[in-house]
Amino acid sequence: STHWLLTLSCDDRPGIVHAVTGAIAQAYGNITELQQFSSAESNRFFMRVQVQSGFDRSVFERAVTPIAESIGADWTLDFVGRPRRTLILASKMGHCLNDLLFRQRSGSLQIEVPLILSNHPDLRDLANFYGVAFEDHAVLPDTKAAFEARVLQTVEQHDIELVVLARYMQILSPELCEKLAGRAINIHHSFLPGFKGANPYRQAHARGVKLIGATAHFVTGDLDEGPIIEQNVRRVDHSVDVPELVEIGQEQESRTLTDAVKLFAEHRIMLDGQRTVIFR
Amino acid sequence: STHWLLTLSCDDRPGIVHAVTGAIAQAYGNITELQQFSSAESNRFFMRVQVQSGFDRSVFERAVTPIAESIGADWTLDFVGRPRRTLILASKMGHCLNDLLFRQRSGSLQIEVPLILSNHPDLRDLANFYGVAFEDHAVLPDTKAAFEARVLQTVEQHDIELVVLARYMQILSPELCEKLAGRAINIHHSFLPGFKGANPYRQAHARGVKLIGATAHFVTGDLDEGPIIEQNVRRVDHSVDVPELVEIGQEQESRTLTDAVKLFAEHRIMLDGQRTVIFR
Amino acid sequence: STHWLLTLSCDDRPGIVHAVTGAIAQAYGNITELQQFSSAESNRFFMRVQVQSGFDRSVFERAVTPIAESIGADWTLDFVGRPRRTLILASKMGHCLNDLLFRQRSGSLQIEVPLILSNHPDLRDLANFYGVAFEDHAVLPDTKAAFEARVLQTVEQHDIELVVLARYMQILSPELCEKLAGRAINIHHSFLPGFKGANPYRQAHARGVKLIGATAHFVTGDLDEGPIIEQNVRRVDHSVDVPELVEIGQEQESRTLTDAVKLFAEHRIMLDGQRTVIFR
Amino acid sequence: STHWLLTLSCDDRPGIVHAVTGAIAQAYGNITELQQFSSAESNRFFMRVQVQSGFDRSVFERAVTPIAESIGADWTLDFVGRPRRTLILASKMGHCLNDLLFRQRSGSLQIEVPLILSNHPDLRDLANFYGVAFEDHAVLPDTKAAFEARVLQTVEQHDIELVVLARYMQILSPELCEKLAGRAINIHHSFLPGFKGANPYRQAHARGVKLIGATAHFVTGDLDEGPIIEQNVRRVDHSVDVPELVEIGQEQESRTLTDAVKLFAEHRIMLDGQRTVIFR
Repeated sequence: STHWLLTLSCDDRPGIVHAVTGAIAQAYGNITELQQFSSAESNRFFMRVQVQSGFDRSVFERAVTPIAESIGADWTLDFVGRPRRTLILASKMGHCLNDLLFRQRSGSLQIEVPLILSNHPDLRDLANFYGVAFEDHAVLPDTKAAFEARVLQTVEQHDIELVVLARYMQILSPELCEKLAGRAINIHHSFLPGFKGANPYRQAHARGVKLIGATAHFVTGDLDEGPIIEQNVRRVDHSVDVPELVEIGQEQESRTLTDAVKLFAEHRIMLDGQRTVIFR
Repeated sequence: STHWLLTLSCDDRPGIVHAVTGAIAQAYGNITELQQFSSAESNRFFMRVQVQSGFDRSVFERAVTPIAESIGADWTLDFVGRPRRTLILASKMGHCLNDLLFRQRSGSLQIEVPLILSNHPDLRDLANFYGVAFEDHAVLPDTKAAFEARVLQTVEQHDIELVVLARYMQILSPELCEKLAGRAINIHHSFLPGFKGANPYRQAHARGVKLIGATAHFVTGDLDEGPIIEQNVRRVDHSVDVPELVEIGQEQESRTLTDAVKLFAEHRIMLDGQRTVIFR
Repeated sequence: STHWLLTLSCDDRPGIVHAVTGAIAQAYGNITELQQFSSAESNRFFMRVQVQSGFDRSVFERAVTPIAESIGADWTLDFVGRPRRTLILASKMGHCLNDLLFRQRSGSLQIEVPLILSNHPDLRDLANFYGVAFEDHAVLPDTKAAFEARVLQTVEQHDIELVVLARYMQILSPELCEKLAGRAINIHHSFLPGFKGANPYRQAHARGVKLIGATAHFVTGDLDEGPIIEQNVRRVDHSVDVPELVEIGQEQESRTLTDAVKLFAEHRIMLDGQRTVIFR
Repeated sequence: STHWLLTLSCDDRPGIVHAVTGAIAQAYGNITELQQFSSAESNRFFMRVQVQSGFDRSVFERAVTPIAESIGADWTLDFVGRPRRTLILASKMGHCLNDLLFRQRSGSLQIEVPLILSNHPDLRDLANFYGVAFEDHAVLPDTKAAFEARVLQTVEQHDIELVVLARYMQILSPELCEKLAGRAINIHHSFLPGFKGANPYRQAHARGVKLIGATAHFVTGDLDEGPIIEQNVRRVDHSVDVPELVEIGQEQESRTLTDAVKLFAEHRIMLDGQRTVIFR
């Protein structure tokens, strides 16, 4: 028996849950988890179902396809727990990369990482320790296009499903952002929409905020404006200076990014315009 | 068109969601919210559905009844937003009562309160301000039975659905606990299972905990052991003495109890043995 | 024996703590609480001391004055627990006012409130219940100046130390902001600096944030840009619509404002330029 | 100029701060951080001061010693930022060890680790990656004494200041606990005092708690009863099963333990009987 995972989104209308669960019943499936959401603003319907079934993919697809077509739905069918092919971009700071790789190895994060691309060599040893291929290429005004071409080539070659910017400190070109729309996750080191752009901890210190945070979001051409996936904060006080904010913030950054990657890996994130629907 | 709310629990087996949503489709209902949970430990299935439908109760009941019977389900059918009849028990401290009544009046808590029963007169003015009937009866060894009889009489007379112990400082008799099983909520002023019984803030101070909390739970004959509904904590440090813990804790107590009462009022709590399933 | 409270700020230099504690020793005082902070950015020194002493104010002042003068310090001397004279401004929503008055009456908030000024009559009953004088005056383009004059007159007449904007929904004039600088606290219903201005919950919903918050800050002429005193957040998800955000947010607003007022009442807030030093 | 760190505790009495800051002034020191606490219950006084001074240790000691002797104080003098010699005990799970070593290397945790002792070989590679010596010895009924002798030998040989049990899954003997009193920190995977002993996540699941936590505490002969240093919690719901609790909890465990070790490394923890005074 296989543990299937079905996601589906379409314009909202009566009867969708009944129709989809009918298809599941037809494939002799047993629902172990089901979540749905009807967005009043966008009039879109979203659904995620986990199903135990002895039947194979083609049977399941034959059952779901006609229903999905009749309601004009986008849908995906996957196995629960299949590691998703992930490309990681990094720079010099290793806290996010370290957390991702540690959890991947310990089995709590279902990703496989064929390659890490970095604009600095600093994290090569860490990648080696976890047995992950690592390339570093300087990213300068005249080499940025080549780096981004290497990103796209990797995406194609390894059939990459997710690109993670693990404190990658370069801004992606609008073209690359567009090509990776909905499948590239960045960690911003502030509680967005506060403190966009450079040096958010310096900005946060100057403004005297009492909580600092981190935000994982989808990458879009509009810097730090992509749909938010996850956010965390931690209390600070007046005595915490900028270097200490950076230290404290790193813990928020790594767990927020890892949680967002985990949600993506488990097909728990769906896009509703500029907002995300998260099925925990 | 009416906004219906259906809850259902039964032994788990394939096809329940399909069958129930079929009955809803048959009553021309449009699902606005649906949550389900299959408990691996107890092998029980739980479901909560909100449905917009133009049909009346009898049509809905005719559609659901045969399915519910065939799967041996317990089920309830209600309107979304109907205020649930609630009896509040109180003593001297008003912070929980104040929060419940303020939110009830401001429309964010769907309860109606025909009566407050207290073992002290202190909160009469507060009850009056909110226009709620108030009775105080001394609860002493020889009058406790009479007080509890008045509780049961009120429950019967007003068809009470929920009894809230808003820092009511007396222990209910095992008989009363049993009669109110699954419909009486207490607030305990600690993060259970830590610090059961009397003076939890004093216990917490002596133990030197760094977070203090509050726990809303169903009342059972086993003191402070009933199924947990909601918990909150707040950070404290060594400099906070017992009276300050009490003050800080009161904020946790009122919001935790109010949140639990709101969950109950909206049929979002279902019992799975000693655990609760909470559909937010 | 009296419980004194001394606050002091000046340019930072060696020897201040020794000098001040020397003055305290001279007045036969016993320090029960002492906090200090040296701001590296502003090079300012801040200190708050609680002292038990049998001597009267003049003795204490004679001991502290020469030291304070020699280091060019601003300082205040008060009793621990003296209720501070507070004017509350309100509009229609009562959750913040209710929390302030409830805690004032229950003894956990050391303020006295000679008057509530409102631009709507809605909260008169609540004020009456707590025995606080209440005036409502329409605030329209041509009456705004009169209302603000009434505010200033009240401040003078009652020797008001703190003005609290408890969801007062009008923008104060720059002149009034300046006159109340450092002694007027507002609650903004977002996690500043995110979502300044009108309808922050609508903005937060559109942006799809995963945590919503509230910020208590000093009022300045620069809207929502005053020094931040306290902030709190609560987790939300995609299913929470704007009216529900408002409801959830109100809990954050009232506790954040009450906590800020409590900090002010206990002389625990000191201003370091655009930032606050908070001695808990 | 050197950045000194002085901690001091003694029976409470008037004049201590003045006397100590006098000694500091005498050594031409400039206080950069000062915290003190008078415990009403134990009548003990605690103080931590950071001081910039051009003078050397002997000058400082000559200034402090007579005062400390006259008030019967325990005191320590150290440099700010000196890495403290730390022995780590581990077993099979690497999340806590990984976090400690990553932060040590990245410079945010001021410890040096001459050796890791483990009762399993699993974490050897991780230790090697961070360049830390690693020994594994089976701990069985007849070899436990030898392992503990090796612990004590290491403590002596390397002048160890702190022993960290980073999910070391063996109970230390009462004799070893006593010898390491006040300098051994354990992480317990629950929010103590709830769920002491084995399998706390299983206990937490059975009890249906809505928040799970982790507690860092000093090791004492009384299992899971030592003075609490730090605690954190995270929200969970009914759908989280035991293996997921374990995963979620690991994040709490590592950050709680690392934070506690950092507090210890920076001399921010002082013992007040069964409670800790934490100067952040």
